[in-house]
Amino acid sequence: MPRLDLPLSDLETYRPEVAEPADFDAFWQRTLAEARRFDAAPTLTRVDSPLSEVEVYDVTFAGFAGDPIKAWFLVPAERPGSEQTRLPTVVEYNGYGGGRGFPHERLAWVASGYAYLFMDTRGQGSSWGSGGHTPDPHGSGPASPGFMTRGIQSPDDYYYRRVFTDAVRAIDAVRTLDRVDPERVAVCGGSQGGGIALAAAGLAQGLIGAMPEVPFLCHFERAVGMTDNDPYHEVVRYLSVHRDRVEQTFATLAYFDGVNFAKRATAPAIFSVALLDPICPPSTVFAARNHYAAEAEIEVYPFNEHEGGQGYHFERQAAWLSRRLAG
Amino acid sequence: MPRLDLPLSDLETYRPEVAEPADFDAFWQRTLAEARRFDAAPTLTRVDSPLSEVEVYDVTFAGFAGDPIKAWFLVPAERPGSEQTRLPTVVEYNGYGGGRGFPHERLAWVASGYAYLFMDTRGQGSSWGSGGHTPDPHGSGPASPGFMTRGIQSPDDYYYRRVFTDAVRAIDAVRTLDRVDPERVAVCGGSQGGGIALAAAGLAQGLIGAMPEVPFLCHFERAVGMTDNDPYHEVVRYLSVHRDRVEQTFATLAYFDGVNFAKRATAPAIFSVALLDPICPPSTVFAARNHYAAEAEIEVYPFNEHEGGQGYHFERQAAWLSRRLAG
Amino acid sequence: MPRLDLPLSDLETYRPEVAEPADFDAFWQRTLAEARRFDAAPTLTRVDSPLSEVEVYDVTFAGFAGDPIKAWFLVPAERPGSEQTRLPTVVEYNGYGGGRGFPHERLAWVASGYAYLFMDTRGQGSSWGSGGHTPDPHGSGPASPGFMTRGIQSPDDYYYRRVFTDAVRAIDAVRTLDRVDPERVAVCGGSQGGGIALAAAGLAQGLIGAMPEVPFLCHFERAVGMTDNDPYHEVVRYLSVHRDRVEQTFATLAYFDGVNFAKRATAPAIFSVALLDPICPPSTVFAARNHYAAEAEIEVYPFNEHEGGQGYHFERQAAWLSRRLAG
Amino acid sequence: MPRLDLPLSDLETYRPEVAEPADFDAFWQRTLAEARRFDAAPTLTRVDSPLSEVEVYDVTFAGFAGDPIKAWFLVPAERPGSEQTRLPTVVEYNGYGGGRGFPHERLAWVASGYAYLFMDTRGQGSSWGSGGHTPDPHGSGPASPGFMTRGIQSPDDYYYRRVFTDAVRAIDAVRTLDRVDPERVAVCGGSQGGGIALAAAGLAQGLIGAMPEVPFLCHFERAVGMTDNDPYHEVVRYLSVHRDRVEQTFATLAYFDGVNFAKRATAPAIFSVALLDPICPPSTVFAARNHYAAEAEIEVYPFNEHEGGQGYHFERQAAWLSRRLAG
Amino acid sequence: MPRLDLPLSDLETYRPEVAEPADFDAFWQRTLAEARRFDAAPTLTRVDSPLSEVEVYDVTFAGFAGDPIKAWFLVPAERPGSEQTRLPTVVEYNGYGGGRGFPHERLAWVASGYAYLFMDTRGQGSSWGSGGHTPDPHGSGPASPGFMTRGIQSPDDYYYRRVFTDAVRAIDAVRTLDRVDPERVAVCGGSQGGGIALAAAGLAQGLIGAMPEVPFLCHFERAVGMTDNDPYHEVVRYLSVHRDRVEQTFATLAYFDGVNFAKRATAPAIFSVALLDPICPPSTVFAARNHYAAEAEIEVYPFNEHEGGQGYHFERQAAWLSRRLAG
Amino acid sequence: MPRLDLPLSDLETYRPEVAEPADFDAFWQRTLAEARRFDAAPTLTRVDSPLSEVEVYDVTFAGFAGDPIKAWFLVPAERPGSEQTRLPTVVEYNGYGGGRGFPHERLAWVASGYAYLFMDTRGQGSSWGSGGHTPDPHGSGPASPGFMTRGIQSPDDYYYRRVFTDAVRAIDAVRTLDRVDPERVAVCGGSQGGGIALAAAGLAQGLIGAMPEVPFLCHFERAVGMTDNDPYHEVVRYLSVHRDRVEQTFATLAYFDGVNFAKRATAPAIFSVALLDPICPPSTVFAARNHYAAEAEIEVYPFNEHEGGQGYHFERQAAWLSRRLAG
Repeated sequence: MPRLDLPLSDLETYRPEVAEPADFDAFWQRTLAEARRFDAAPTLTRVDSPLSEVEVYDVTFAGFAGDPIKAWFLVPAERPGSEQTRLPTVVEYNGYGGGRGFPHERLAWVASGYAYLFMDTRGQGSSWGSGGHTPDPHGSGPASPGFMTRGIQSPDDYYYRRVFTDAVRAIDAVRTLDRVDPERVAVCGGSQGGGIALAAAGLAQGLIGAMPEVPFLCHFERAVGMTDNDPYHEVVRYLSVHRDRVEQTFATLAYFDGVNFAKRATAPAIFSVALLDPICPPSTVFAARNHYAAEAEIEVYPFNEHEGGQGYHFERQAAWLSRRLAG
Repeated sequence: MPRLDLPLSDLETYRPEVAEPADFDAFWQRTLAEARRFDAAPTLTRVDSPLSEVEVYDVTFAGFAGDPIKAWFLVPAERPGSEQTRLPTVVEYNGYGGGRGFPHERLAWVASGYAYLFMDTRGQGSSWGSGGHTPDPHGSGPASPGFMTRGIQSPDDYYYRRVFTDAVRAIDAVRTLDRVDPERVAVCGGSQGGGIALAAAGLAQGLIGAMPEVPFLCHFERAVGMTDNDPYHEVVRYLSVHRDRVEQTFATLAYFDGVNFAKRATAPAIFSVALLDPICPPSTVFAARNHYAAEAEIEVYPFNEHEGGQGYHFERQAAWLSRRLAG
Repeated sequence: MPRLDLPLSDLETYRPEVAEPADFDAFWQRTLAEARRFDAAPTLTRVDSPLSEVEVYDVTFAGFAGDPIKAWFLVPAERPGSEQTRLPTVVEYNGYGGGRGFPHERLAWVASGYAYLFMDTRGQGSSWGSGGHTPDPHGSGPASPGFMTRGIQSPDDYYYRRVFTDAVRAIDAVRTLDRVDPERVAVCGGSQGGGIALAAAGLAQGLIGAMPEVPFLCHFERAVGMTDNDPYHEVVRYLSVHRDRVEQTFATLAYFDGVNFAKRATAPAIFSVALLDPICPPSTVFAARNHYAAEAEIEVYPFNEHEGGQGYHFERQAAWLSRRLAG
Repeated sequence: MPRLDLPLSDLETYRPEVAEPADFDAFWQRTLAEARRFDAAPTLTRVDSPLSEVEVYDVTFAGFAGDPIKAWFLVPAERPGSEQTRLPTVVEYNGYGGGRGFPHERLAWVASGYAYLFMDTRGQGSSWGSGGHTPDPHGSGPASPGFMTRGIQSPDDYYYRRVFTDAVRAIDAVRTLDRVDPERVAVCGGSQGGGIALAAAGLAQGLIGAMPEVPFLCHFERAVGMTDNDPYHEVVRYLSVHRDRVEQTFATLAYFDGVNFAKRATAPAIFSVALLDPICPPSTVFAARNHYAAEAEIEVYPFNEHEGGQGYHFERQAAWLSRRLAG
Repeated sequence: MPRLDLPLSDLETYRPEVAEPADFDAFWQRTLAEARRFDAAPTLTRVDSPLSEVEVYDVTFAGFAGDPIKAWFLVPAERPGSEQTRLPTVVEYNGYGGGRGFPHERLAWVASGYAYLFMDTRGQGSSWGSGGHTPDPHGSGPASPGFMTRGIQSPDDYYYRRVFTDAVRAIDAVRTLDRVDPERVAVCGGSQGGGIALAAAGLAQGLIGAMPEVPFLCHFERAVGMTDNDPYHEVVRYLSVHRDRVEQTFATLAYFDGVNFAKRATAPAIFSVALLDPICPPSTVFAARNHYAAEAEIEVYPFNEHEGGQGYHFERQAAWLSRRLAG
Repeated sequence: MPRLDLPLSDLETYRPEVAEPADFDAFWQRTLAEARRFDAAPTLTRVDSPLSEVEVYDVTFAGFAGDPIKAWFLVPAERPGSEQTRLPTVVEYNGYGGGRGFPHERLAWVASGYAYLFMDTRGQGSSWGSGGHTPDPHGSGPASPGFMTRGIQSPDDYYYRRVFTDAVRAIDAVRTLDRVDPERVAVCGGSQGGGIALAAAGLAQGLIGAMPEVPFLCHFERAVGMTDNDPYHEVVRYLSVHRDRVEQTFATLAYFDGVNFAKRATAPAIFSVALLDPICPPSTVFAARNHYAAEAEIEVYPFNEHEGGQGYHFERQAAWLSRRLAG
């Protein structure tokens, strides 16, 4: 994918107008309030895994509509004789189509001394990796294959209303756990996971940091039709059929635009962006970062596509988060 | 797509063993009985369309679980002074991803003097064409994008259980209409529509004919992994992630295999098959036809891919159906 | 195909200079005058088809150089006792590579109460669909595969000189028929058919309307080299070999540019354009529409590729034409 | 392109039944006799080129129907004081879509001391290279883009009837030239040029050798549908539309099958074949070689696609031809 | 990629003849003996990383020709007061084009209580991931892009002679480390890493296990030309140019064929294979496994391509290795 | 590839700032001085080829580090009795991945009366054509497949340092030959060969002309990331992994940028450029041409991709060179 988006110098100051519904805050307050009525404590089951150095728990918590959402929770194995402390904690959301898979697949945060919760994405987890385990028990109107247009006929029914609510509830849940310091919770994720992390940063209170990598779900009016890659292209495909629903579709999406969550974020952030990214074009990422209401670094990977910074970026995130906790 | 399947001489006698659940008939009897409890009559609304020569009705009938399913119903416009008669009727099911669109898009049967019902496929209608209008209000477990793996964790929850039930209920519904001769109803469809028509032929009583074109959803054990084209490949994608669900997945699919419906069909049939078809490989089509329990012609298109016979095949179908009605 | 052409706001006023030969009108007057010397009446043969509600005729008329050109002519079946009237009539031209196929493949206009003539495109009809039946008995100089560069060495020999002449003669022919009201003839077509319709609108007199959909064959200087899709790319391929014929090639094409026909049109028009169209880029369509000499609406499909508006657009065309006839 | 055809050990003895029309010989005798009525001597014009070491002539000779066919004729520049002799001569035919281009583009035979005629292929020469200069003044029935289906409705009208006749007439023409030894003429060509060389070997008398490289136009019944690459695929595309013309199409092609020419060849031959060739599958080449009526070597390139032996094979051809002339 | 290789039932017993040079053992004895002359102890440098729970060392050891080879060495962080023990150890080799990247990218074995060495592959590490750090200071003859044909003109110069020697020396090196139990070293790797692991299993003594996943570099005579995917296809590309080197190329490759190493292995093994693998076709993997001289399980992933078992397979490997250590 | 670069009118004056190392001249003086220490005369071996009209020599000369570099040297065969003269001479460099192949593959210059040296490119010659015969005995650091990133860690080690030095030494070598007029040597080449010719034009003294066609290796800062085609994309791939080496990589490349050589050229030049070139985008070619320090024509091929002018351009080059020699 060659460079097709704006030059970097323009991206750095790209701060477009993005549609924001008048009742955006009301919508989300109502949504979260309804979800929090299902306040059952998360259930944790110790998992027998080969990971002798890590305690692994299979977690179920109540998400949107109280639906049971799966996650893995990992903490460094207790050392005999050492005192158990509450740990700073990272909550991670997954990329599009992936599932929580196996606990041994994501060990970098726990090996760095954090408690770590990895949330399954409802209904997903069947496109790559080792599988998801969380149903999405809600049907939808006509939709193109994928998750992007499920329930897009109204904000109330839209798929990501459920997912973003799950994301906030995951933070609620993790804060109740013994080994977690509820004052020191950060969120992260790449691509869809980055978009969810942004939503969580805009909706959850008191986070210590947000680390969206090459985030998806930002600045829909530009993204949809700018790239012919899924998942943004799922919306194009839908609108190429439902030619009479353009206005309504973008009206729905405005409730879920990462830019609107960025405007409401309070925790400091470190973003990443890849300048050759054909999935999440860089201008859509900068739109969110440049609207971000708190301090927001951005690490630019000039010759990467959607893989972004990968191992390099974990080094940067870990150093950044460490500084934040120390500061 | 070059020829990769068996040579035609082998295809003509290809009659493989296909897994059949012991409770196949019980499963479907129970399924239909439950659906028929929702026995509300279909609602018809006359539509104001440019089609001055055709009466067009927007139909809603009760499908699986009583869910409202949309369809178009078309009959030749009444001629002043002529007596209204009950017409022979064709019920058509749609290809994968398509919706019922506009009534003016499928006029050949009504222009040939038939009453015609075109059923919307629940949840679909957002990939090509002019759109579907029927929600699928049932959620699902983790699934790959598309409809092939929704609810595949059990026959009860599988997406096509709902669709095939809708298909039978569409026949039930059309038979209640004034302009329809309930003794002279035939079913047709191409690709997914052909698979649904096969299911209807195996489940509905007293049809005058079945006309599956290049039918999909046949002989899953061979089809899944034989082609790398969707929609069969959706199942490959699912199993490439859920590596521990191979057995269960095929156990579910066996309840929905066109071959098993073919074994139970009583109406005569005319199939079509395309020898270069990379979507529905010819051996999977011949498997259904060669197991078909009633008389079954097959029209072979040796140099076509999945488009099959198109306009040529309508000529053959129309002649065949006309002979059946006359005979 | 992502958005690569101008933004919509620029397209709406995009009215480029397009090369126009000094003898453009003389060329076409001479061309049509020569063709009209072959003034034999069209021959009509009633076709025995399954379409009981439609009268179908196989038509042959004299096109360029008097060559026999095939068409289907359809009118609603006579109703016993009703008086035969002259009907408003639609003449349709086909997309690139298609043939007239079967009469049952295009029924929307006749089902809407119009007489309808569908012209075969000489030499074509062997790339998709159900086949063409009209030879092109004229050879050509060296040409790349396809029809775009046949005879491109001079306007006199160029393939589309013959096709556009056929298109005008089709209108001449249909006007002679009993069931046709010669004062109420409209033309339509998509892609190549839209380009031919534009040419007909610029060359034929007294049309009631022109309905070019996503028209091809417009603004060659921009289109050739802007997209790497056939058929425009056939010209690129030709010029990539015949590197010394660039000037002459565009000199020929200027006699066939839809923009130059648009400048001469007198009938009102309804265009369509698709903003993601990689075959007929939107700016080339707007170039024709914005030069159109009569009233010209345009329906914009923002998320479609070359399929354009499909069923949606027929609804708009039918309403538009109905208003024109009423007005 | 991986290996998909038969293993080499089977190819070496692959000698399939290939359809041969009863009047094959009569057809070609009549065809050539008609063409030879146009017996005007070829015209040669000395060309001013940068090639100081080569005499270059622009040749026009009478082909099928007496149509003027272009060629280049090259001989080593006369050396002052040396006696002019009649040279052994190579006639070469071109690959699909190519034209005769410039004389400087094919110098290996003349640099090896041969007189050399390179025939333009009528109508072609606009897909790659530097261009053709020979029109094909004969029109055709409906045909898919390309040359493979032009006039395929009957052997009399088929495009390759004209081309193969041109090829024989090129040999007739070159034999009349001063610098050519008419008893020592060989033919060669790659791909389409190899197919034409095979036809020439089956139709022309007294050749000293035939050198078809990876020849096209052999064993149509196997080739058409075995590969999805053009040009064989052009026939698939045609038959995918004209579904009612399968039998007639192959009846026409049988008059042009390289296997049938191979059966009649009298000059010794050296073939080449590439085992990974996706354009001209190896079994179709071996079919011609194994039916070849005279001595026929074959050079096998096991890891090449359609490019075959390229420079390697010229070395082999030159050594082989040199031995033949010496022998 | 659909199923193109043998059916599973045939694969399970597929045990082809594979060329083995007479001096295979002598070649490798000489090669290793020469390398072992460079017997400098590995250097270890403690790395300051975010991984608080893991001790990370940057390792350099002497590989082929004493060239410095980089690796990461990881052990669980020492727990205060606990006694340091020698740990069972896993040595891993990387896939084609990858580098050792960052230590935090591969934590599953160390989190499972093993010492772990991850070897960089000389010259590679610039195609995906986070980079390699080991030069390959040896030039080569003409080679196609990639590593597969470097030095292929002779076994002495072939690239994989150096890599396989490095692999054995990595085992030598790790066995000298304090935290490593030299009697309990296992090797693993996927794709190229699996091929290297097989070579190590055939060349190194006293391993406790070998775990090749979807191994590459096996049964070259079948693999080269069977798939058109790199890296096997690099050899096809080379031979498509160097048409005179087919015999010599395979003579070189025979010294590096995983099948020949398998015949010599003494440690028990667990393989994996993916039945839709278009990079390392399943028959080439089964060829190695079925020739494996010690006990060899194989885990079959029927619906996976080259990604194989991923997280699922780690679970199986960890359980298998745990049993071996316990047994 | 559609037009994506600047319009022609902008290209004609496009003269960007291009990074130039302060020690550029010193670097190359040192480099060439070191290479010239290996001053062994070239060895020539008369080759027995089929080319009776050409004397063919297999040449070996000392390139970078004295490494033996292969070339073909061709002169028109001596004519008995004619006096031998020193000929104007063309030195040609090859495109990426190609080798010197066979002498009979490039005959146009010798057939035009020139002496001609065709240099093999070290290490290459295994991707297309008939093969290279020159090793590159220097290893490298981690590199992506291909030649673009070998040794890119420093200008001293970079692959093209060796190649460009070979190119200058080829000129040195050819000037020592009996049949060559050392005052009348020109250089040419296409793509990589054009880039090498540019380097030679900037480094060698007293050339009579330079003829770079669609040259590669120009204006790296723009080219790398502008196209996703190899070989420029090899650098993108490398930097997508080695995310910390962007600055250093471009610092190395600046020593090898064709623009910097163009600034130093003294011989007149004729360039070619293709406006649809997706491999060597036209702006990168114009950057070199517009910085060229001597007279520089440019032939623009508006509808070609990377094949550029092919046979057409040889005609222009030959005429141009002939004028220069005459002038």
